[in-house]
Amino acid sequence: MTRPIRLGMVGGGNDAFIGAVHRIAARIDGQFELVAGALSSTPEKAQASGAALGLAADRTYDDFKAMAIREARIKNGIEAVAIVTPNHVHYPAAREFLKRGIHVICDKPLTSTLPDARKLAKAVESSEALFILTHNYTGYPLIRQARQMVAEGALGDLRVVQVEYPQDWLTEAQPDDNKQAAWRTDPTRSGAGGSTGDIGTHAFNLACFVTGLTPESLSADLQSFVGGRQVDDNAHVMLRFEGGARGMLWCSQVAPGNENALKLRVYGSKGGIEWEQENPNRMLFTPFGEATQILTRAGNGMTEAFAAQTRTPGGHPEGYLEAFATLYAQTADVIRAHTPGAPLPSDPPLPGISDGLAGVQFVDACVTSSRKNAGWVSLG
Amino acid sequence: MTRPIRLGMVGGGNDAFIGAVHRIAARIDGQFELVAGALSSTPEKAQASGAALGLAADRTYDDFKAMAIREARIKNGIEAVAIVTPNHVHYPAAREFLKRGIHVICDKPLTSTLPDARKLAKAVESSEALFILTHNYTGYPLIRQARQMVAEGALGDLRVVQVEYPQDWLTEAQPDDNKQAAWRTDPTRSGAGGSTGDIGTHAFNLACFVTGLTPESLSADLQSFVGGRQVDDNAHVMLRFEGGARGMLWCSQVAPGNENALKLRVYGSKGGIEWEQENPNRMLFTPFGEATQILTRAGNGMTEAFAAQTRTPGGHPEGYLEAFATLYAQTADVIRAHTPGAPLPSDPPLPGISDGLAGVQFVDACVTSSRKNAGWVSLG
Amino acid sequence: MTRPIRLGMVGGGNDAFIGAVHRIAARIDGQFELVAGALSSTPEKAQASGAALGLAADRTYDDFKAMAIREARIKNGIEAVAIVTPNHVHYPAAREFLKRGIHVICDKPLTSTLPDARKLAKAVESSEALFILTHNYTGYPLIRQARQMVAEGALGDLRVVQVEYPQDWLTEAQPDDNKQAAWRTDPTRSGAGGSTGDIGTHAFNLACFVTGLTPESLSADLQSFVGGRQVDDNAHVMLRFEGGARGMLWCSQVAPGNENALKLRVYGSKGGIEWEQENPNRMLFTPFGEATQILTRAGNGMTEAFAAQTRTPGGHPEGYLEAFATLYAQTADVIRAHTPGAPLPSDPPLPGISDGLAGVQFVDACVTSSRKNAGWVSLG
Amino acid sequence: MTRPIRLGMVGGGNDAFIGAVHRIAARIDGQFELVAGALSSTPEKAQASGAALGLAADRTYDDFKAMAIREARIKNGIEAVAIVTPNHVHYPAAREFLKRGIHVICDKPLTSTLPDARKLAKAVESSEALFILTHNYTGYPLIRQARQMVAEGALGDLRVVQVEYPQDWLTEAQPDDNKQAAWRTDPTRSGAGGSTGDIGTHAFNLACFVTGLTPESLSADLQSFVGGRQVDDNAHVMLRFEGGARGMLWCSQVAPGNENALKLRVYGSKGGIEWEQENPNRMLFTPFGEATQILTRAGNGMTEAFAAQTRTPGGHPEGYLEAFATLYAQTADVIRAHTPGAPLPSDPPLPGISDGLAGVQFVDACVTSSRKNAGWVSLG
Repeated sequence: MTRPIRLGMVGGGNDAFIGAVHRIAARIDGQFELVAGALSSTPEKAQASGAALGLAADRTYDDFKAMAIREARIKNGIEAVAIVTPNHVHYPAAREFLKRGIHVICDKPLTSTLPDARKLAKAVESSEALFILTHNYTGYPLIRQARQMVAEGALGDLRVVQVEYPQDWLTEAQPDDNKQAAWRTDPTRSGAGGSTGDIGTHAFNLACFVTGLTPESLSADLQSFVGGRQVDDNAHVMLRFEGGARGMLWCSQVAPGNENALKLRVYGSKGGIEWEQENPNRMLFTPFGEATQILTRAGNGMTEAFAAQTRTPGGHPEGYLEAFATLYAQTADVIRAHTPGAPLPSDPPLPGISDGLAGVQFVDACVTSSRKNAGWVSLG
Repeated sequence: MTRPIRLGMVGGGNDAFIGAVHRIAARIDGQFELVAGALSSTPEKAQASGAALGLAADRTYDDFKAMAIREARIKNGIEAVAIVTPNHVHYPAAREFLKRGIHVICDKPLTSTLPDARKLAKAVESSEALFILTHNYTGYPLIRQARQMVAEGALGDLRVVQVEYPQDWLTEAQPDDNKQAAWRTDPTRSGAGGSTGDIGTHAFNLACFVTGLTPESLSADLQSFVGGRQVDDNAHVMLRFEGGARGMLWCSQVAPGNENALKLRVYGSKGGIEWEQENPNRMLFTPFGEATQILTRAGNGMTEAFAAQTRTPGGHPEGYLEAFATLYAQTADVIRAHTPGAPLPSDPPLPGISDGLAGVQFVDACVTSSRKNAGWVSLG
Repeated sequence: MTRPIRLGMVGGGNDAFIGAVHRIAARIDGQFELVAGALSSTPEKAQASGAALGLAADRTYDDFKAMAIREARIKNGIEAVAIVTPNHVHYPAAREFLKRGIHVICDKPLTSTLPDARKLAKAVESSEALFILTHNYTGYPLIRQARQMVAEGALGDLRVVQVEYPQDWLTEAQPDDNKQAAWRTDPTRSGAGGSTGDIGTHAFNLACFVTGLTPESLSADLQSFVGGRQVDDNAHVMLRFEGGARGMLWCSQVAPGNENALKLRVYGSKGGIEWEQENPNRMLFTPFGEATQILTRAGNGMTEAFAAQTRTPGGHPEGYLEAFATLYAQTADVIRAHTPGAPLPSDPPLPGISDGLAGVQFVDACVTSSRKNAGWVSLG
Repeated sequence: MTRPIRLGMVGGGNDAFIGAVHRIAARIDGQFELVAGALSSTPEKAQASGAALGLAADRTYDDFKAMAIREARIKNGIEAVAIVTPNHVHYPAAREFLKRGIHVICDKPLTSTLPDARKLAKAVESSEALFILTHNYTGYPLIRQARQMVAEGALGDLRVVQVEYPQDWLTEAQPDDNKQAAWRTDPTRSGAGGSTGDIGTHAFNLACFVTGLTPESLSADLQSFVGGRQVDDNAHVMLRFEGGARGMLWCSQVAPGNENALKLRVYGSKGGIEWEQENPNRMLFTPFGEATQILTRAGNGMTEAFAAQTRTPGGHPEGYLEAFATLYAQTADVIRAHTPGAPLPSDPPLPGISDGLAGVQFVDACVTSSRKNAGWVSLG
């Protein structure tokens, strides 16, 4: 086996949600070894979190910049860093590592503001290192297959895209000590978008990833249903794509009965597909005029190429963490094959800086459109 | 048992779809007897169709006006008429019966144009007879219960309505001899709306029926994906309701894999519900923070009042025809209790002229909005 | 339209369940007209029930024998009779009509005892009239298609049959005034089998109907879980068929969460199918090594021949009553084409006396096997 | 973080299925470090497999006994070993490690023969080390909760257990180079049971784990449908439990359309539960007389204690590997708290030697019963 890649982490201290997910994802296929971290902006918490994770004391930092500087210098310093902080820290943190040639694996959305997103894009462009954005839902094997099916014309000319991402955890105002809720509903940390930034970007990204369509413009009607909330908690969006396809996107954090119900449906002149994240090991495919087929992960109807991206036989369900891990495993492959300064390759289809920029533009356009009474706003 | 009500029918000759449905619906509970018809505008076909249905020769008419005149005069003439023609005939036919005091049971949408709809509304107002519009999906027992649950506050303050009605039968251009497709895609017979008129009105009506909300305005993006089609075959609509609730409505006839997939989801501050027409004997109900419950028709979780509107115990599925039949059975009750000139009572909640007018306004607003690049158009 | 067939009914008075179902089923396709009845063995109730159904007073009988005698004599007497009494009355009632040339449509199970079943078989054999047993689940269009698919070899050589029919309505002891529970758990009226007779016979019949297999023997372990119950309320049965296929059958009336969950799965060397009665408009079909297909009633994957046996397009769900009605409609066709003394034709595949006899033998074998500690008992 | 436990592996070389699963499961929660292995009985393959996994050359063994001897002696030798060979090697391998105080994590079934199982039970009894059997399905969080619910009486007195485990991968004879099929259908390596040993033991174990019932006896009808196959590929089993509950168990490897469709249903006097392995993040629970509830992993209806055994919030599906990993993580906890010679604690409920012995007895009883024409055979 090739040696695991040395990984650092910014954010992800005790009580964080997504940091722990990244650590498991990095571990599942054994391609990364976590060796350094600036796990919190609070020094004591940074230390305690590092100790809990078994990091060496001298590689537990209070500050991501100090970490970038030192790790870039020392022998066996980190080769890649996972940035799992609240959104507004993504850009300043990523910049420090990118400029020192350390690969960045960054959680989504790319940044909390569009200017930051553009600055980060420049930082990526001028870096010798790679930048990967963890739009983890693109790691699901059947999503990969769906993308391929669309590309190969199994659905004919695309016409309609329906994507939705309802949740219910913000149905009521949150107590102040709910850290996850606190930063995600604070525009200074999360950005101007609430549900649009947190989950709408995933939905938007997934629709683009699978269809390969270029979004042209959108019309958005955003709401904040819970009193006192400063960002949207529900969004209704109409989409127009180049070439004439149209779409609808719904994201919500106030829809009781929905945990994490990301769902994508794509229809074309020859067929349709339907996939739901909460039961991700199956996808419906209907060639027009024929019976609907249930394609299963690693089962009948899945092509060998995509079956190879899974770890267990059909019927042994893989889930959220495995899809996330596939991004990490493929990132490891890409890092190992990387020539300094080369761009992120298109195969495997890892989300990168352009997807991140598109996501922040999506949020910005949603907010702008909604302020203009849902007038159309161009994308890209 | 009370004597069955004498029923006539306009439209519904051989090869028609919805006429046969009305006849079965009228028959299931034994409350109507079909005794007269003007089943086709083609005389030979009218005669052949009447004979096939066992109608007496002297009560088989070539022309709905002749039928209205004679049936109003003869002893034991029809008491009610079902109008199941293409949309553009609804108004002229209904008018003839209404003015002669014969109750009208009319298929949806109300008319093919908004002016016709307004004229029909006046005709109803000045008639001594009743007017019922067969928005048949309102007859499903769990839909009735959903309406009651919303009214009683089980969902709290309503926030989000998601309604969709995808089909796939018009994914490709239809051969000329497909009668159903021919008139439904001909604006002179169907009206300016295609999918919006044919199925969008059902979706819109169902959302209003269950929520009790008053729609305020809409923004619509309509498409005709199949070359040469003169009306929309896919529609994306954003809705605003009085009081702040918001909605999305999608209807499509070009979504491969969808047969008749009407689905309604309603979310409020205290809970959510979800119901799908293709498996109508169950409904999901989630009180916020609790496990989702599967309410079943005539089963656990259904109130006795609504269980009484069904014919079989839980687990013995009722379907489309039974829901339709419930409208007919309740229409019979209402007819028997009717005082000439009295309005349609609100209980049972039978759809009537105001629902029909709202539906045609919906179609008109969709077409208008779409022509204005999805600008907001007021409803009502 | 051909004239409706004149129908009488034995049993089915006020408060009965299955009588009302038969009446609706007979009415849906307009092929029968109910004109006479001996609706209850209690004279006042018979009269009241007849009046409630609109029967003429002189055709409302207190006694099925008197009804058979008079209806056979009068002009325009009944041509067919539906027998919907508790099981122990099936034989004595059917005999009176069969011997007078009146066709019998009888609810299942055939009789409450095996001797009665054999006597009834002889009565059918010597009658000029037809005998149809309402194993109504065989009327579902997809079940008809499944039978055809098996016959045509789509599943290859059959190996395994899994059939189950769980309910939960007898989970607790029933109050004395529950009439349905009372006779169904009384061996003198229901027969020696409880769940085996009431629902096990349906499951057994459905398995045989679809597979065409001849059952050879069974091993049964019956239970009465509720104290004081005199018949089985749960049964575990292993089946052996001629040619080597094997099966399991489970029926239960004490399985909380199950309303009427009849389910059939059949597996062969080339494929498998799966169908559930509570969502009967779809069936899963897996050709071995390929993706599972969702076949839908009147939709893609259904053959035209079977689509013709339905009333509504795909996506407009038909249910229990429509399947039941198909048996009635096809019975009407068969009656009209009948030559006195000719046997029930094999096409359409209406269940008849041999299916009824097999069902009673099944119950008898289950009881016998269970008393012998689940020893194998031959069938047929 | 506590130091990871040093783990060795016997079996699991290149191309093996379950070895890779164990390695991922051991890695997910970071509690184990794989440092030694006897990965194949073929020396070159053992070496190649060790190298591929990054094991040091001096800790890559050709032979499990040599490995046990050396690892027990060296400083920082393995603390635990995972045995993932074909079944007939479980006993001889486990014995070598147990006698040297190295904890054993063994795949199921326990052994290929009942005498071996009994000898292994003695070896465990006399060892200072622990023995864990990876009945991995017991690691699913909702299965843990189901067990607790039953124990606390949520279902009342148990009556009926329905468990099934159909697959389809052996529907046809397998090519000789299918290693997985080869040993699993070879009685000298797999044991006398085919599907009963490979998957029936899982089903049996899961039923006992959740219900807490003691199985008393069984009646089994086994089949080998594919020509030339030496072991069963389909089994029908009736179960009797102490206290009067009864069950059915079906396992099959020849049921087209089933990938790994383990399903458990348990019914009692107060309620029922239903769970399916292929969609393991939800479980149905019906308190008798109330609406069925959908309990979700880490969601509404799950108790906090069990939510703590998961890694992601509700709606972020965990799967097969996470359930497996939970056994590993809890094994690590138990190993760290272990006093030499102490028995496996009952909390957490890790499967151990008694479960393994019960499984082999189950297979033995199935084979014996089937040979006696499905006569009842005592268990335990």
